[in-house]
Amino acid sequence: MSAIKPRIFKGARDFLPEQMIVRERIMETMRKVFRIYGFAPLETPAIEYLNVLAGKYGEDADRLIYKLNYKTGQKDEAALHYDLTVPFSRVMAMNPQLPLPFKRYQMQPVWRADRPQPKQGRFREFYQCDIDIVGSTSQISDAEILAVQHDVLKLLGFENFIIKLNSRKILNGVVEFCGLDSSHTQEVCRSIDKLDKVSIDVVSDELKEKGYDEKTIDALKQVMSLSGHDKLGELESLMSNVEIAQEGFSDIKSILNTLEAFEIDMSRVRFEISLARGLDYYTGAIYETKLPDHPHMGSLTGGGRYDELIGMFSGREVAAVGCSLGLDRIFTAMQQLDMMGEIKHTPTQVLIGSFGDDHEFLIPILAQLRKAEIKTELYTAQAKLKKQFTYADKLGIRYMLLQGDQERDAQSVNIKDMKDGSQTLIKLSELVDWFSYKF
Amino acid sequence: MSAIKPRIFKGARDFLPEQMIVRERIMETMRKVFRIYGFAPLETPAIEYLNVLAGKYGEDADRLIYKLNYKTGQKDEAALHYDLTVPFSRVMAMNPQLPLPFKRYQMQPVWRADRPQPKQGRFREFYQCDIDIVGSTSQISDAEILAVQHDVLKLLGFENFIIKLNSRKILNGVVEFCGLDSSHTQEVCRSIDKLDKVSIDVVSDELKEKGYDEKTIDALKQVMSLSGHDKLGELESLMSNVEIAQEGFSDIKSILNTLEAFEIDMSRVRFEISLARGLDYYTGAIYETKLPDHPHMGSLTGGGRYDELIGMFSGREVAAVGCSLGLDRIFTAMQQLDMMGEIKHTPTQVLIGSFGDDHEFLIPILAQLRKAEIKTELYTAQAKLKKQFTYADKLGIRYMLLQGDQERDAQSVNIKDMKDGSQTLIKLSELVDWFSYKF
Repeated sequence: MSAIKPRIFKGARDFLPEQMIVRERIMETMRKVFRIYGFAPLETPAIEYLNVLAGKYGEDADRLIYKLNYKTGQKDEAALHYDLTVPFSRVMAMNPQLPLPFKRYQMQPVWRADRPQPKQGRFREFYQCDIDIVGSTSQISDAEILAVQHDVLKLLGFENFIIKLNSRKILNGVVEFCGLDSSHTQEVCRSIDKLDKVSIDVVSDELKEKGYDEKTIDALKQVMSLSGHDKLGELESLMSNVEIAQEGFSDIKSILNTLEAFEIDMSRVRFEISLARGLDYYTGAIYETKLPDHPHMGSLTGGGRYDELIGMFSGREVAAVGCSLGLDRIFTAMQQLDMMGEIKHTPTQVLIGSFGDDHEFLIPILAQLRKAEIKTELYTAQAKLKKQFTYADKLGIRYMLLQGDQERDAQSVNIKDMKDGSQTLIKLSELVDWFSYKF
Repeated sequence: MSAIKPRIFKGARDFLPEQMIVRERIMETMRKVFRIYGFAPLETPAIEYLNVLAGKYGEDADRLIYKLNYKTGQKDEAALHYDLTVPFSRVMAMNPQLPLPFKRYQMQPVWRADRPQPKQGRFREFYQCDIDIVGSTSQISDAEILAVQHDVLKLLGFENFIIKLNSRKILNGVVEFCGLDSSHTQEVCRSIDKLDKVSIDVVSDELKEKGYDEKTIDALKQVMSLSGHDKLGELESLMSNVEIAQEGFSDIKSILNTLEAFEIDMSRVRFEISLARGLDYYTGAIYETKLPDHPHMGSLTGGGRYDELIGMFSGREVAAVGCSLGLDRIFTAMQQLDMMGEIKHTPTQVLIGSFGDDHEFLIPILAQLRKAEIKTELYTAQAKLKKQFTYADKLGIRYMLLQGDQERDAQSVNIKDMKDGSQTLIKLSELVDWFSYKF
């Protein structure tokens, strides 16, 4: 047989059962929390018209959109979605009948024609798990989005994580406070962002080189010297004359109060003036979740308020706030922090082995266990017992069930516990009961 | 604000919550059954190299593969997967370490550049939910695949469905019986397939026109006259000299016996010589599930044995059998058969309303209910009570919870049952208990 070389698309991944079982558990945990918070599921197609996607993320991102070989250059040119927020905004614009506030979750792969960097967790195809609330300007909605991220991570077993919080309004206020106009916002944000890595002096030297004047740099230095959660009050006083900043502080304090009322562990929530986030469309509070013990690992979740994006489709402003939980980042973090538990290759709990090639008489036992929702397989090939045990062992199946002629005559089976090696002879009539406290 | 016209890709669909809640329920039911039968989850990327996909399905299908605008004409040309079976076969060839038999389920969208026919349930993007067993030649594996389809449909509430069963070996036997070589297999299958709609005479006239000789047509007429489950024995006798057909009959009988041992309702399982199935890669038993009361509705599930496909990648023959459950077809059927139950727009069970714009004091109530895993929302906007009730009503939220000044002083809340209009005043300390038997 001449074979076709089996190759996987560069930057994409297969998920074998040992990964998928954990991924499904993560997604089921997310879904559970999303539903408790009243989010409803929604899905959009992978394929969108290119002009729906382009021009929303900024130029750099637009280049990373995968286009189909379909009506290239025409108005119906098609592409794979780059994230879930823009398609969701399209849905909101196309469905004015949906009652507001509208709360939805959406968990689907997205595609980016990027240079893959598997070690940094950068792939061409990966999952986003999004929640959004549309039609609410209340800070309670921002707090809910944060509370969901908190609850999901906690339920998955993360202990030491930090939710960083800032506001685009405060960042705009800083620009104003420094006597600059909004064209300098990106530059100023980038400078503050660097404080994570370098000192205030290095940053201000850089700004000097770029031609910023003494007064601006002094103002910015004042802001940067008040970095950190405990400086929130001082920073607010410093910018007491900047209206947009005051709005931002008021938002942040209201969000913090609500989170406290939600009984969130507040030591995990930190205001961070250095948090900026890349995407163009944010307008209010922004946030990110990081693992302080693993500073090089990217953020596990991130999001914010974007009150203007849906209006790009519908023509009228609609408030919106949401976040994306990174399934792949969370998975990688759990792997690196040894949070996966025992590796499982199958859901199977019981393997029925056999001594020969006649399996028919074992089918009723198989059917009986499955009816009781015990996850059971029958080894259907003709193989030596040793090979069957090896199979159970490799897959991590806990119980191996055998029925020789003797057991068959006695209407019994032999159960071997693969974990401790113990064996039990049990009547068929008591088999389901025997398993009922095992799983 | 000048708006971009929001359009959805032709032949693709958005799934709003009222559809998604049912789709998630269907998929959760499938996953439950798959796991009980010992299938493990697996996922492959949407994007594959074109040469992995092309040449496996037959010419007609190859034309329907969506290509990306990526390295067109080169060996790394990329495309969207057309089904899940070929990518899965690639995975099996690339992962020789996986212990056999390997049982996996896979639930993902697939894409076909087809002319969309929404009324016939034909879309360009739709879900396939596949199960496959690799590395087992046993007919018990075929029977398991059939039993899973049966159990899923039963659990979803389908009562009147028929599992049609045939074998490619028997069809190849028919060709031999008619004195033809295998190049005529497709033509012969297509003729037998037509018996669903037209009479034997119409089919034989057509074959005469195509130049088939009297003897061939007579033989085929003999076969076609034995159509139907109860003719299985007669057909077997008729082709007693055709070895490949006898193999096929033996397979089918063995599968039927196993299904009986599984305690499947055998009145639902029908041998059908007219069942052919389109795809090239089948080699043994083939099957399809149909609703006899809705003959125009396509098959809900379908599959068969394909012992040669994996070998196209790995170079060595590996037995495989599996099926695809059509999420969209099942969804449409449930809709048309009025099996959906009450339409739900949200998972939310309780809506906390408010009399003013101060919501902070309601957060602890919200948090308390969510901690008890009661799906709860807070109406965060400032709106008249009437509007809040309308919102709960539109979304189908069962309970509306209100706390005025009086109730607040008395540490109580008022619960309105939106279904029967009844109202209950309840102490906050008893709130969670009150709900504990409601859902």
